[in-house]
Amino acid sequence: MINTLVDNIKKTNAPIVVGLDPMLNYMPEHIVKKAFAEYGETLEGVAEAVWQYNKGIIDATYDLIPAVKPQIAMYEQFGIEGLKAYKRTCDYAKEKDLVVIGDIKRGDIGSTSAAYATGHVGKVKIGNNTFVPFNEDFVTVNPYLGTDGVKPFVDVCKEENKGIFVLVKTSNPSSGEFQDRLIDGRPLYEWVGEKVVEWGSEHMGNDYSYVGAVVGATYPEMGKILRKQMPKTFILVPGYGAQGGKGKDLVHFFNEDGLGAIINSSRGIIAAYKQEAYAKFGAEGYADASRAAVKDMILDISQAIESR
Amino acid sequence: MINTLVDNIKKTNAPIVVGLDPMLNYMPEHIVKKAFAEYGETLEGVAEAVWQYNKGIIDATYDLIPAVKPQIAMYEQFGIEGLKAYKRTCDYAKEKDLVVIGDIKRGDIGSTSAAYATGHVGKVKIGNNTFVPFNEDFVTVNPYLGTDGVKPFVDVCKEENKGIFVLVKTSNPSSGEFQDRLIDGRPLYEWVGEKVVEWGSEHMGNDYSYVGAVVGATYPEMGKILRKQMPKTFILVPGYGAQGGKGKDLVHFFNEDGLGAIINSSRGIIAAYKQEAYAKFGAEGYADASRAAVKDMILDISQAIESR
Repeated sequence: MINTLVDNIKKTNAPIVVGLDPMLNYMPEHIVKKAFAEYGETLEGVAEAVWQYNKGIIDATYDLIPAVKPQIAMYEQFGIEGLKAYKRTCDYAKEKDLVVIGDIKRGDIGSTSAAYATGHVGKVKIGNNTFVPFNEDFVTVNPYLGTDGVKPFVDVCKEENKGIFVLVKTSNPSSGEFQDRLIDGRPLYEWVGEKVVEWGSEHMGNDYSYVGAVVGATYPEMGKILRKQMPKTFILVPGYGAQGGKGKDLVHFFNEDGLGAIINSSRGIIAAYKQEAYAKFGAEGYADASRAAVKDMILDISQAIESR
Repeated sequence: MINTLVDNIKKTNAPIVVGLDPMLNYMPEHIVKKAFAEYGETLEGVAEAVWQYNKGIIDATYDLIPAVKPQIAMYEQFGIEGLKAYKRTCDYAKEKDLVVIGDIKRGDIGSTSAAYATGHVGKVKIGNNTFVPFNEDFVTVNPYLGTDGVKPFVDVCKEENKGIFVLVKTSNPSSGEFQDRLIDGRPLYEWVGEKVVEWGSEHMGNDYSYVGAVVGATYPEMGKILRKQMPKTFILVPGYGAQGGKGKDLVHFFNEDGLGAIINSSRGIIAAYKQEAYAKFGAEGYADASRAAVKDMILDISQAIESR
């Protein structure tokens, strides 16, 4: 799947991923109204709105992008119905040949991580039948529990030809509280990065490992160091746009081949119609606004890479 | 809810929690067969088996124990249907006046943690209606992202009178890989413990904070240190029994008042009928075996506390 991701990026010339993180206040009124008219002001209603909203964005952008990254929390907040919309979104994106990165940030002790891996990137055998509960291509994993919390994901990914992105340096303001603390003279995130390389060496694709890393766009200097430390590791970079990262800040996340990183934008794409630059599309044209924002993002990043 | 937890512990004289972590190979054949007969060898079928299995254990033990801790991964592995069984289990345990600790180990950047908090310990407003998506009393939280990943949980918990347990030192063999690394002469888990105290000071119950800590039974020496470092913090202690912890090793997790810790056992209770000591109950009597194992666990821990 890392090979597919790389192929998709080469085909689209777009090392980006659209974060499908639907919030109620992002969703255009006409979509919400229609869903509520059909299902009431209920969890079913909001889940229907989430699904229709996502479908519009996927339909308007899938030919331009290699991947989507639904953030499961934004669905889980609506309970079971929300999680159904999550699954439906993942399945639909895969139908459109997009790579699906499930931003689930799971991680637990061995047997429990194995259960998460089964549910999200694996298969479950029930009697004589086999089921695929969720069906992401990649998931994000929290490293706090160490190797035996991560290895079960790698093991399932090896069987399924899938991958993970391990949190190394997150994009949020307080990520440094623990991640930046020095251990034998080096910050914790570098030690985690070192382990990511080790875990990844057991599951390599053609040029990159199936075990990637998450490093926030908001910390470009750290990205530069980590890029060198993890040359075969694909870096998922959240925090572009709304969280503050810009194309020119992100060039060092990429290798010389122009690959090795995939930049995520969520709000900046899916709620583009709310920005002044795309206001002309209006709420009814939210999906076209997202398409325009995707094109601008691709331009921003490719220009930055070319002119470095 | 921390006050309720303390009250429940005093009432039952049992500082324990039963981990409802249903694995297919723990479940008695008669339950699985019946569920498959009704729903087929499907995700629905396995979810029905999970629910019936849990219901049996809750019915057989609820009068002896203060709380249950369903591990959501064990349900999530069966997809949407599994998560329905998770919710049903949580709801039923609450009907039986048990405190429900959702072992979800979530944690993300601010707005995303807020969504998880809404989904699990909060309420969601949809139009003029308000819904409770899941409905745990406590959830476990991963601290790797720092304060702004944890605070949204605390904020929602303040509104809802609920609480969290933050991972400090986990019970698994490789937990030391990052958690034990020394930062300015002290292990990372102590720095996390210090933050837990800080976060907890903003949401105090009568004697203990609504912000607790997870410290594995498998590391009793560290538990002793953390107990002193976090006197007002309730400690959730996984790893008793199957993972290796014993009552006498755990006395230092408790304060002088005999409170301050709650020991979790999962497999040791819910799959007790598979152990030699409880084999006489047979698979049909699995729930009675669980009841007997609960009684033995309470005895082991209370004797250890008394004779310290």
